[in-house]
Amino acid sequence: MPPYFEASIKPRFSETDMRGHINNTVIPVWLADGRAALFREELGSRVPTMVVNLNVDFSRELHWGALVTARTAVEKIGNSSIRFVQELWQNEQRCVQARTTVVTLDMETRKPVRIPDRERSLLAPYLITDEG
Amino acid sequence: MPPYFEASIKPRFSETDMRGHINNTVIPVWLADGRAALFREELGSRVPTMVVNLNVDFSRELHWGALVTARTAVEKIGNSSIRFVQELWQNEQRCVQARTTVVTLDMETRKPVRIPDRERSLLAPYLITDEG
Amino acid sequence: MPPYFEASIKPRFSETDMRGHINNTVIPVWLADGRAALFREELGSRVPTMVVNLNVDFSRELHWGALVTARTAVEKIGNSSIRFVQELWQNEQRCVQARTTVVTLDMETRKPVRIPDRERSLLAPYLITDEG
Amino acid sequence: MPPYFEASIKPRFSETDMRGHINNTVIPVWLADGRAALFREELGSRVPTMVVNLNVDFSRELHWGALVTARTAVEKIGNSSIRFVQELWQNEQRCVQARTTVVTLDMETRKPVRIPDRERSLLAPYLITDEG
Repeated sequence: MPPYFEASIKPRFSETDMRGHINNTVIPVWLADGRAALFREELGSRVPTMVVNLNVDFSRELHWGALVTARTAVEKIGNSSIRFVQELWQNEQRCVQARTTVVTLDMETRKPVRIPDRERSLLAPYLITDEG
Repeated sequence: MPPYFEASIKPRFSETDMRGHINNTVIPVWLADGRAALFREELGSRVPTMVVNLNVDFSRELHWGALVTARTAVEKIGNSSIRFVQELWQNEQRCVQARTTVVTLDMETRKPVRIPDRERSLLAPYLITDEG
Repeated sequence: MPPYFEASIKPRFSETDMRGHINNTVIPVWLADGRAALFREELGSRVPTMVVNLNVDFSRELHWGALVTARTAVEKIGNSSIRFVQELWQNEQRCVQARTTVVTLDMETRKPVRIPDRERSLLAPYLITDEG
Repeated sequence: MPPYFEASIKPRFSETDMRGHINNTVIPVWLADGRAALFREELGSRVPTMVVNLNVDFSRELHWGALVTARTAVEKIGNSSIRFVQELWQNEQRCVQARTTVVTLDMETRKPVRIPDRERSLLAPYLITDEG
C-alpha cells in the first residue's frame, strides 16, 4: 500500500504569471499546504517545525483551472529531522517532485530538539520503506 | 508644495498573472510598502498600527518591467485613526488611487489608542490641506 | 432566503504575520477566491472580468488554525459592472466586509463591454434585493 | 575577485509569519528577485527561462526590519541550462544558500533551447571557477 497522503489544492488566479502558468515561487506554498494537511490536520501534531532544506524538481508546468493533488510521504525520520517527499499532480500527470527537510523545534531556544515519540508513531504509516 | 512622499517599487515577475499584467491582489501589498516607506523608514515611527479600511480604485493596468512610484500622503488624522491617501504611478500615468485607514494600537489589549503627539508632529508635513 | 453563496477557505501558515494574525494584504486574495468560487466554479462563467474598485472593512482579526467562510452576493448589476458584496466569517464572527466592483472585459480591446444576458441570469439568484 | 552580483531586498511586513520571522515560502521569491536583478536588469537579457530545480538551505532565520543582500553567481552553464548559486545575507550573517537551475526556453514550443552566445558572454564574469 503506498504511504502517500493526498490533499487537494485549488490553484488561485493570482498564482498564475504572465507566462500563463503557475509561477514557480507558488510551488513551495503548495508543498507547505500539503505537509500541513498531513502533519497538522490529519495527524493532529502541534509540535513546531522549521524548514532547513527544500529541494524541488519542476518537470511540467501547472495551470489554473484544474485541481492539484499534493501527495506527501516521509522518507526519513532522524533525531530531530523529518524528510518529507512530495509530489504535485495535475490532470493525471506528475508535475513536481520535492524533498523538504524540517526539524522539530524548541520554541524558547529556537534550537532543534528530538522528535517526540508520539510524532514518530503518527508518521510511521507514511514512511516509505524499500518495499513501499 | 505637494505633501506626497514618494517610494519606488520594482514589480516582481511572480506578481504578474496570466492576463499579462500585475494581479489586483498585489496592489494592497505595494500600498502597504508605500505606507511603511513613509511611516516606518522615513519618519522612524515604531507605533503599531492596524488597517481598518482599504479602498482602492484601479484605473489602469500595471505591468512588469517598469518601476512603480508609490505616492503617500495623509488625508486625515483622528483620535486613533490615520487616513492615508496613495497613488501608484507607472510610465508617468496614474494607475491606482487608494485610501487606507489605520488605527494606532495598544499591543497588549489590541485596542485602538490615541495617536501619540510625536507621530502627529511627524505626519503633519504630509497632511493634505485645502491648499495642498 | 439569503442570496449569499458560501465558500470555505483554509488559512495558510504563510498568510500569518509577526502580529500573530492573518496579514491584511491576504484578505483581497481570499475575497478573489470567494468571487471565483461563485462566478467561475458554481455558475461556470468564463467571461473575463477586471477589478475596478475594492473596498474592505476589517472589523476583527482573522487567525490561522480555523476555517474561514467567504459569503458572496451581488449588490448591483450595471451595464458592464458587477458589484459583489462579501463577508469573511471565522469562529461564527464576521471579521471582514467588502465590496468589489468588477467590469466584464473584451480581451482584445481590454475595454469594458456589456455583461452578457447569460451572466445576468446566472447572477440573478444572488442579487440582494430590499427584501433579501 | 568574487563573481557574486549583489542586490538589495527590503523585507515586507506581510512576509513575516506568526513565528516572528520571514516565512520560508518567501525565500524563493527573493531568490527569483536576485536572479532577475542580475540576468534581466544588470545584463539586460530578455531570453525566457524556466526554473527546473530549486534547492535551498535555510541556516538562519531572517527578520523584518533590516535589509537583505542577495548574492548571485553562476556555477555551471550547460547546453540549455544555467545553474545559479545564491546566498541571502542579513546583519552580516549568511542565512540562506541556494542553487537554482533554469533552462532557456523557446516560447512557442515551450521546450529548452541552446543558450544563445550573447547570454554565455554576459554570464561569463559571474561564473565561479576553481579559483573564484
